[in-house]
Amino acid sequence: MDKEQFIINAFLNSINGDDGAIVDNWCFSKDLFFENVHFKRSWMSLEQIASKALLINISDAIVMNAKPKYALLGLALPKNLSKAEIKALQKGFLNTAKKFNIKIIGGDTISNHKIDISITLISEIFKKPVFRKGLKIGDLLAFSGNLGQSLKGLELLQQGKKLSPNHRFIKPKIRKDFFYEIAQKLSCAMDISDGLSKDLSRLLKINNLGISWYKNLNSYELYSGEEYEILFAFNPKYENFIKQCAKKHKVKLNIFGQAVKGKYEFVGKEHHF
Amino acid sequence: MDKEQFIINAFLNSINGDDGAIVDNWCFSKDLFFENVHFKRSWMSLEQIASKALLINISDAIVMNAKPKYALLGLALPKNLSKAEIKALQKGFLNTAKKFNIKIIGGDTISNHKIDISITLISEIFKKPVFRKGLKIGDLLAFSGNLGQSLKGLELLQQGKKLSPNHRFIKPKIRKDFFYEIAQKLSCAMDISDGLSKDLSRLLKINNLGISWYKNLNSYELYSGEEYEILFAFNPKYENFIKQCAKKHKVKLNIFGQAVKGKYEFVGKEHHF
Repeated sequence: MDKEQFIINAFLNSINGDDGAIVDNWCFSKDLFFENVHFKRSWMSLEQIASKALLINISDAIVMNAKPKYALLGLALPKNLSKAEIKALQKGFLNTAKKFNIKIIGGDTISNHKIDISITLISEIFKKPVFRKGLKIGDLLAFSGNLGQSLKGLELLQQGKKLSPNHRFIKPKIRKDFFYEIAQKLSCAMDISDGLSKDLSRLLKINNLGISWYKNLNSYELYSGEEYEILFAFNPKYENFIKQCAKKHKVKLNIFGQAVKGKYEFVGKEHHF
Repeated sequence: MDKEQFIINAFLNSINGDDGAIVDNWCFSKDLFFENVHFKRSWMSLEQIASKALLINISDAIVMNAKPKYALLGLALPKNLSKAEIKALQKGFLNTAKKFNIKIIGGDTISNHKIDISITLISEIFKKPVFRKGLKIGDLLAFSGNLGQSLKGLELLQQGKKLSPNHRFIKPKIRKDFFYEIAQKLSCAMDISDGLSKDLSRLLKINNLGISWYKNLNSYELYSGEEYEILFAFNPKYENFIKQCAKKHKVKLNIFGQAVKGKYEFVGKEHHF
């Protein structure tokens, strides 16, 4: 067992291995977004940093079929940030919160030598939640959108280039309306944060199943992390419905395989910062 | 306005300025516990670090009169931690969670160059919550326990000395049973994390009141942070009841002043790491 899995098992698997934890009608999720772990300050504006920190948490809630309602912000901020810089962070949080109808209700701020953000999202389950568990033999496996852009953007940043404000790496696309519409027909879902291959291996492992591939995916598609597209599965009888929803919401639908008996081992390399 | 208050106003005061945020019957609280901000690894064992990280969050929930039920752990951990070190952290979290009947239901782990812990606690409100707001003219102001030990411990650590495992700085005393019993009679309460003087100034400011002092407190009592004793106020008619409860729970009760019209400005210096 690798150390990452050891840590996950030690702390987090007591109830679930999901993007969020469900208690009554609530979904609780928490993601860390740390300077020099997830971003460099030279790559993004402070407004973009705050916005992405919140978006990656929103992504977790949405793939559970939960509607984000409240957020707690944990902010570790350098003492030498100016008031203008603090206002830029504030703007990123508030604008993104507003767009998703989220109220910031509390949190904690401390001084630190770098910008480390920890967000907890409290989301409401209106219908039934969608878990990572639930995959059945014969289910079709699919992901939304085009994968690979996040890794390509990271490579450009590491070469000292700049990305446009709408680049995937700066501003993840959240497939809220599409996902809420298809959620009731899904067997399982999760967001793609560590790359399709790594996240697929987790999804299949938790369900004790393997995959029969429909197409060859390139290494960008397989290994690009921080995509925040959605990996999901459904019974083939819902294929037409899901295709129609994808068309309606202008989301590219990629049905790339089918769940079968067997195992799928992650063998590639995670490519994210 | 100082920058700390600027940050608090920018992000956290949209609903409250309390230790926890109340939504329906739930209290949500979040505290960060960061290496080289709140602790040095040479000062405490990993088990003690994990335990204190959870205890300071539990303290927030209890002073709102909420019962901690669930926790989300955000763990930023160095890659070079050994499995034995990870197990020591795990032991600290699990033992403390068990003592307070808390289930760890999820979170996030990432690699970082130091140990930074962010905990969210989800607590249930069984009766009425106690807020920072609610102080009335004539209310008696009190704190539990003896203040000053935390700062004295910090000074010893900074001189390279060691503290015993039961020292206040290592293991805050949580006055759970005492607080739950007196909570219904209190006008307001908060825990003492930044020193009595600083926290009192916040309590009085939010209530637009001042204090008439009953006794002179020394600078350790006024400025020692991370005490996690409770600052609270009550109508004088409850004085006997509260004295009896303190006696029953063997908690030292210090009635140090009375709320009056006026202002109280914090003028000292915060003494915590």
